Amino acid sequence: MEILDIKTSNREELIDITPLLMDFVKSTSVSNGILFIYSPHTTCGITINENADPSVKSDIIQKLKDIIPYNDRYTHMEGNSDAHIKTSLIGNEIFVCIENSDIVLGTWQGIFLAEFDGPRTRKVWLNLKYT
Amino acid sequence: MEILDIKTSNREELIDITPLLMDFVKSTSVSNGILFIYSPHTTCGITINENADPSVKSDIIQKLKDIIPYNDRYTHMEGNSDAHIKTSLIGNEIFVCIENSDIVLGTWQGIFLAEFDGPRTRKVWLNLKYT
Amino acid sequence: MEILDIKTSNREELIDITPLLMDFVKSTSVSNGILFIYSPHTTCGITINENADPSVKSDIIQKLKDIIPYNDRYTHMEGNSDAHIKTSLIGNEIFVCIENSDIVLGTWQGIFLAEFDGPRTRKVWLNLKYT
Repeated sequence: MEILDIKTSNREELIDITPLLMDFVKSTSVSNGILFIYSPHTTCGITINENADPSVKSDIIQKLKDIIPYNDRYTHMEGNSDAHIKTSLIGNEIFVCIENSDIVLGTWQGIFLAEFDGPRTRKVWLNLKYT
Repeated sequence: MEILDIKTSNREELIDITPLLMDFVKSTSVSNGILFIYSPHTTCGITINENADPSVKSDIIQKLKDIIPYNDRYTHMEGNSDAHIKTSLIGNEIFVCIENSDIVLGTWQGIFLAEFDGPRTRKVWLNLKYT
Repeated sequence: MEILDIKTSNREELIDITPLLMDFVKSTSVSNGILFIYSPHTTCGITINENADPSVKSDIIQKLKDIIPYNDRYTHMEGNSDAHIKTSLIGNEIFVCIENSDIVLGTWQGIFLAEFDGPRTRKVWLNLKYT
């Protein structure tokens, strides 16, 4: 298992980690397989979405804030229930396919760490399996 | 990697792709393994739900429209921010298990392409791994 | 494929199945790999979140009820459309990494069956793949 460290700068943000994942894949000898990407956190997920127009990222963050506000009738006393709920909805893990030592993504796709309770230093766990 | 082409007919709909996936699995020599199903799009996901009563599909689509309306305070100018947000919530990838050259699903489960910005021709990427 | 039976006690609840999954992994001879965890149901998902403070579980359940109420303009006549919608949002499958015959989780993470239409006896399907 490979571990990435990602520094986040805001309470909520999507951070494009695609270049870091590409570097990792190229550093291995695996040319074809599946890359498993996993957030070991409960207030920070992983998602795939458009990496061309940054307004897509801010619209995702804003709509999640509308649906799951920071302040509500929460019982968890740490003040980050919204972040836990968002993480279960977005998910904390994804897989992508590897071909010719490259991550195969759709034209507009990037892979994002979804920070919901930052700023913090987050881990991302990577597992690459041969085909 | 195998690629399916799926034509969608509406802006938002769930399309049962289970039969196409079954055909693909039977066309291979893999009898036991895991099938990875991936949407390379950012406004179109993959989900598993009931394929018996079609009203389940329409209730999912309608509730997502209620929560994430087409018109809102979005900043992305292409008019499909709702579709991007829904895709990150539903997810763009799933895995299912293969046994005896068949996809093993629960009694009521089907595998759906979740179109949120159609009609378009969509791709679904398939990767089948041996056990 | 290994099958777990999980009895749920309420219409909606998160049940920590981590100990059962740990037992399963230890009962196999696989020391390193990936465990695929799959709910074959359409009104019951799988999610990873905090297993320390039980109020996180209740906040997740309550917020999902707020967003997707039991009674609404649903067309599905079985009275559980909310459960179907929640299952597609939370997802019905996850993977976790196995190292040294143990499930590798983040400090606060547990793996939960997300019951949305109980009480019932639910199945969880497990597939463990060697690295």
